[in-house]
Amino acid sequence: MADPTPQQRITGDQLRAFIASAFEAVSLPREDAKTIARLMAQADINGSEGHGVFRLPQYIRRIRGGAVNVRPDIRVERELAGMALVNGDNGMGHLVMKFAAEKAIEKAKTAGVAWVGARCSNHAGPASLYATMPLAHDMIGLYMAVGSANHLPPWGGLDMLLSTNPIAVAVPAGEEPAVILDMATTVAAYGKVKTKAQRGEMMPEGWMMDRNGNPLTDPRRANEGFLLPIGGYKGYGLALIIGMLAGNLNAAAMGKDVVDFNNDDTSVTNTGHAIVAINVGAFQPLSEFRKGMDTLVRDIRNSQRLPGVEHIRLPGEGTHAARADREKNGIPMPPALLAALDQLSGDLGIPRLVR
Amino acid sequence: MADPTPQQRITGDQLRAFIASAFEAVSLPREDAKTIARLMAQADINGSEGHGVFRLPQYIRRIRGGAVNVRPDIRVERELAGMALVNGDNGMGHLVMKFAAEKAIEKAKTAGVAWVGARCSNHAGPASLYATMPLAHDMIGLYMAVGSANHLPPWGGLDMLLSTNPIAVAVPAGEEPAVILDMATTVAAYGKVKTKAQRGEMMPEGWMMDRNGNPLTDPRRANEGFLLPIGGYKGYGLALIIGMLAGNLNAAAMGKDVVDFNNDDTSVTNTGHAIVAINVGAFQPLSEFRKGMDTLVRDIRNSQRLPGVEHIRLPGEGTHAARADREKNGIPMPPALLAALDQLSGDLGIPRLVR
Repeated sequence: MADPTPQQRITGDQLRAFIASAFEAVSLPREDAKTIARLMAQADINGSEGHGVFRLPQYIRRIRGGAVNVRPDIRVERELAGMALVNGDNGMGHLVMKFAAEKAIEKAKTAGVAWVGARCSNHAGPASLYATMPLAHDMIGLYMAVGSANHLPPWGGLDMLLSTNPIAVAVPAGEEPAVILDMATTVAAYGKVKTKAQRGEMMPEGWMMDRNGNPLTDPRRANEGFLLPIGGYKGYGLALIIGMLAGNLNAAAMGKDVVDFNNDDTSVTNTGHAIVAINVGAFQPLSEFRKGMDTLVRDIRNSQRLPGVEHIRLPGEGTHAARADREKNGIPMPPALLAALDQLSGDLGIPRLVR
Repeated sequence: MADPTPQQRITGDQLRAFIASAFEAVSLPREDAKTIARLMAQADINGSEGHGVFRLPQYIRRIRGGAVNVRPDIRVERELAGMALVNGDNGMGHLVMKFAAEKAIEKAKTAGVAWVGARCSNHAGPASLYATMPLAHDMIGLYMAVGSANHLPPWGGLDMLLSTNPIAVAVPAGEEPAVILDMATTVAAYGKVKTKAQRGEMMPEGWMMDRNGNPLTDPRRANEGFLLPIGGYKGYGLALIIGMLAGNLNAAAMGKDVVDFNNDDTSVTNTGHAIVAINVGAFQPLSEFRKGMDTLVRDIRNSQRLPGVEHIRLPGEGTHAARADREKNGIPMPPALLAALDQLSGDLGIPRLVR
């Protein structure tokens, strides 16, 4: 079946080169610019479009506004055998979290499990980017973050003291692809609301609520209400706890101290994250674990389906499919995004993404 | 306002003595019987009635059926600086998880964070019992378990390959009580369904679904359907991932290997759990952390409320309130439960709970 709205596609190399040149243009060291470009492009390749190059204009705006440090001294501030606390020195979140994930992996090689917190960081893109880093080392990865804008009140409340605080966990298998859960603790991420508004569509009930407690379904009225947590008070509890583990524990911003990075180009956010690397081989022979995971994945995939359901999905299947498609066919670029990036290239005096 | 159905109340001492004598009667060593009794009574005191003495007849039945080892050699099977794997030798879950939690706390004193998995264990009562153990050591506790009966299919599926796999996290504060999240990954726990059936009430839509995908609201028809996960595919993903971390990682039962301990008094379950102890002082000065937690808790409690909402709750408030009430006024005992325990005392030849 032909795609109803075929989009121009670009290669990963094109995208990485463009992103890197944008960050170099605002004074990031070349190696750092390339690292961020690689991670941001990977987000697009993995199908996490809302957290890939889509965010570039905003990142550049905040760097130009002085909100982000372009020459950070990212460092380990505290360390014991099973943990570390990374101070990101207000650098780009991608650099801070790559550093933190590598530290967790290194420590888990000897400690078996290592928990690394990060503070003085910034928005780092999709959670799964970091949760999946331990996979190559036969480790499970677990990532949590304080989201970079509060759209969620406590259950029963109106004040938006919480973000959509995401959690991602990546578990290696054997012949089967890794299982990768990457979820916000709200029913819908805020980006989905924005997309509905752009398309002139209504939202289903259950995504948002207005300040009287009634369902809010018109996405153009999004600023009159707030997102709803999954499972009611349970999702509120999850968002809160994730915020404590990724924020409070690391002396990073949480609650009313969270800066809305969509509407503020000058304030330091002190974003907090946590990454845990779990060395599977410390618990049991790796081959046994892989076999067990393959069995579980296949039992689920081949299990009986509800009427009308075509197949049972494992968390991460969408990501694996997007990656396979995009590595082969390129990354689709919506016209509106291309236009925004063309505008950015003009502002920065760098070559356009598509010439 | 007077309680419409006043129930007999008993003291914690009475309850502990009764439970301990029951376990001694089926050949558990006196100290182990007392340990389990203390933990089970604590569940009732904390308001986790569905996981307290209510489970005693079932536990005793399974011990008499040969499913549980009454003289286990609970031991550390593998260990590195940041982790341990505990083999519970098929002992009562309460003994295994107390051992595992103490190990995690001990290790976190030097490693900062310690992750302890357990296998060859059994049902251990409410998740929060273990997540709260690190609190007394100024640590955060995180507990996960593979539930002891599968009531949840993968999203879009019919085969009940998953349990309500719970997660509990306990975070210390300063002057404020600890924040304690303890939740199943399904909208309703199966015990709530049983309670509705007992009372002749219907369930709200959203708790269960029948095998055609329609809402199931009659709890007497519970065996014709299955529980629904919170947030749809997100709750399914959470249940699955928790099962992998508490089950697969520890070479414990998961998926179709999970034994339904409600309907089987003879099979070994190989139940898996995980407990993580996070030493707050490794990350920042404890006093700073406590201050930050108090501020967050108060900001939430004092935030603006939706119309009709009387107060904003923090996770764990129900537990703190139940404990305060029951430590002062005793533990309420529903007549049906008392009758079941009287029956048990007759079977075991031990004194009745209430004479």
